Amino acid sequence: MKVDDLVIGGGPGGTPAAMALATAGRSVLLVETRAGRGGTCLFEGCIPSKILRESARRLQDVRRAQEFGLQVPAGEIGVDWGAIMKRKASILRGRADGALQRARQIPTLTVQFGSAALLGPRRARITPRDGAPEEVEFGSAIIATGSVPNLLPVTGVGLPQVLTSEQMLEIDRVPKRLAVIGAGPIGVEMAQIFAAFGSRVTLLEAGPRILAPVDEEIAIALQEHIRRQGIALELGVQVAAIARDGDGVRVKYRDAAGARREAQAELVLEATGRRPNVDGLGPAHTAGRHDPRGVKADTRLATGEPCI
Amino acid sequence: MKVDDLVIGGGPGGTPAAMALATAGRSVLLVETRAGRGGTCLFEGCIPSKILRESARRLQDVRRAQEFGLQVPAGEIGVDWGAIMKRKASILRGRADGALQRARQIPTLTVQFGSAALLGPRRARITPRDGAPEEVEFGSAIIATGSVPNLLPVTGVGLPQVLTSEQMLEIDRVPKRLAVIGAGPIGVEMAQIFAAFGSRVTLLEAGPRILAPVDEEIAIALQEHIRRQGIALELGVQVAAIARDGDGVRVKYRDAAGARREAQAELVLEATGRRPNVDGLGPAHTAGRHDPRGVKADTRLATGEPCI
Repeated sequence: MKVDDLVIGGGPGGTPAAMALATAGRSVLLVETRAGRGGTCLFEGCIPSKILRESARRLQDVRRAQEFGLQVPAGEIGVDWGAIMKRKASILRGRADGALQRARQIPTLTVQFGSAALLGPRRARITPRDGAPEEVEFGSAIIATGSVPNLLPVTGVGLPQVLTSEQMLEIDRVPKRLAVIGAGPIGVEMAQIFAAFGSRVTLLEAGPRILAPVDEEIAIALQEHIRRQGIALELGVQVAAIARDGDGVRVKYRDAAGARREAQAELVLEATGRRPNVDGLGPAHTAGRHDPRGVKADTRLATGEPCI
Repeated sequence: MKVDDLVIGGGPGGTPAAMALATAGRSVLLVETRAGRGGTCLFEGCIPSKILRESARRLQDVRRAQEFGLQVPAGEIGVDWGAIMKRKASILRGRADGALQRARQIPTLTVQFGSAALLGPRRARITPRDGAPEEVEFGSAIIATGSVPNLLPVTGVGLPQVLTSEQMLEIDRVPKRLAVIGAGPIGVEMAQIFAAFGSRVTLLEAGPRILAPVDEEIAIALQEHIRRQGIALELGVQVAAIARDGDGVRVKYRDAAGARREAQAELVLEATGRRPNVDGLGPAHTAGRHDPRGVKADTRLATGEPCI
């Protein structure tokens, strides 16, 4: 097989690139690993988390309705988690179907569900999810494989109660107690969402403040805000291990003063950053290189291998 | 009296300008007409309307709560208009007091409640609300008097049921039927707010679409949206007169096809634009000029009289 352009990864980077190239008349092969998740699968984090966030935000608004001169009938305001997850699934399905349908309308675009491994500057092996591997020769390739969650190297990260953000978006109920490790954008957002839904949330951060890349003034203001929301935020902690505790777990850590502490939780969210998703991609067979921050590229996004 | 700078108008233009000049050590006289409305009075439209809009938006959100997986007790969701107006008054009072307090901390800034009339390039007459007129000599002056509502020249605009947007923000109940004349930003916003609060709203616009200065695509999309909200939007109409009708009024107009029509309403909002607030200001005594769009100024905001 021979194509003008190979696009590896059908997320929000690869899909529009593949569609634009194919619309311009070039033959394009778009390879996406996650067929089981509903087609070209544009969304692993941002969109489903925003769907949960929207319900959380609205829940808070309903609770504050009286403050704004609105009269809501007396009684408890509740969360129908099943309905929220159903809404999420329906939105994602609609978007995935839509994207796949748009892709199928472009004659020079082939979408292949499976994996791709670079064999050299202009060759790759495509392994479909159902089918035999095939080699493809390409004029140029786009690596748009994104990132995967980074797991802490501590005992217990493999326990079933310890979830990545992707797994957290699929849980079947709101946990009574949630421990979140890592106060980056994912950890802070999830802590706020589940605190709004009624979880007692502990948020553990190794650094001296939340959201390291964000302006300090903003981060400090947000820290105060999330503490007012009832989130137990601990900064400067060193997580040592996660241990089983009945049906739940205990997160063992040292606090900023060096004292041994524990946080009990029904679930733990591991939100300790993400790393480039290059396992098995084989960039080493090309002049392309990567480091923990991503695939190295120049200002025009060319790797060391200019056609990639 | 002699000052470095005279600032006429204590709104969001004049107040920060006066404070900045005085903070830099210049002697500044800030003249604001509306002492009775709570001090330096920064807000005549934007802020109170956003306060109403916020309650309206939240009301719509509460009504849609179930769609987002939230459970709200059965029963009617109501509006406590008194509570909304009380919240508005409290926010405005807080801001007005805060602004006045900040102004009073600057020793070289004098705030005078009253009116100002230019007598020449460097002279003005200040008439305090309580006290005798006084002449002031200034090095430079800033005209920041803003605008006032423009009224249609038709019979009936003087009826008590016909309100400007400023009066509309002070009404004591949600009208059952509201007619809004003019689908500019003020008219559209008010129509949407009161439609959310339960008014049956007719929105009458002379032009071929709403929001003339806005991109057509956006305006058309919003037109469709507000019609879905239940607002009866009529474009290309010519309002002929407003007549008393029991406790309410009838707005008589010709529709786009030229047919005579009437809209019954409890209240009418006149939102047919605004004109520069220069009555009595006396710019004719200087080389400064104005037209219906405002005081004429160059790119550095100097009028024909460079010190103004």
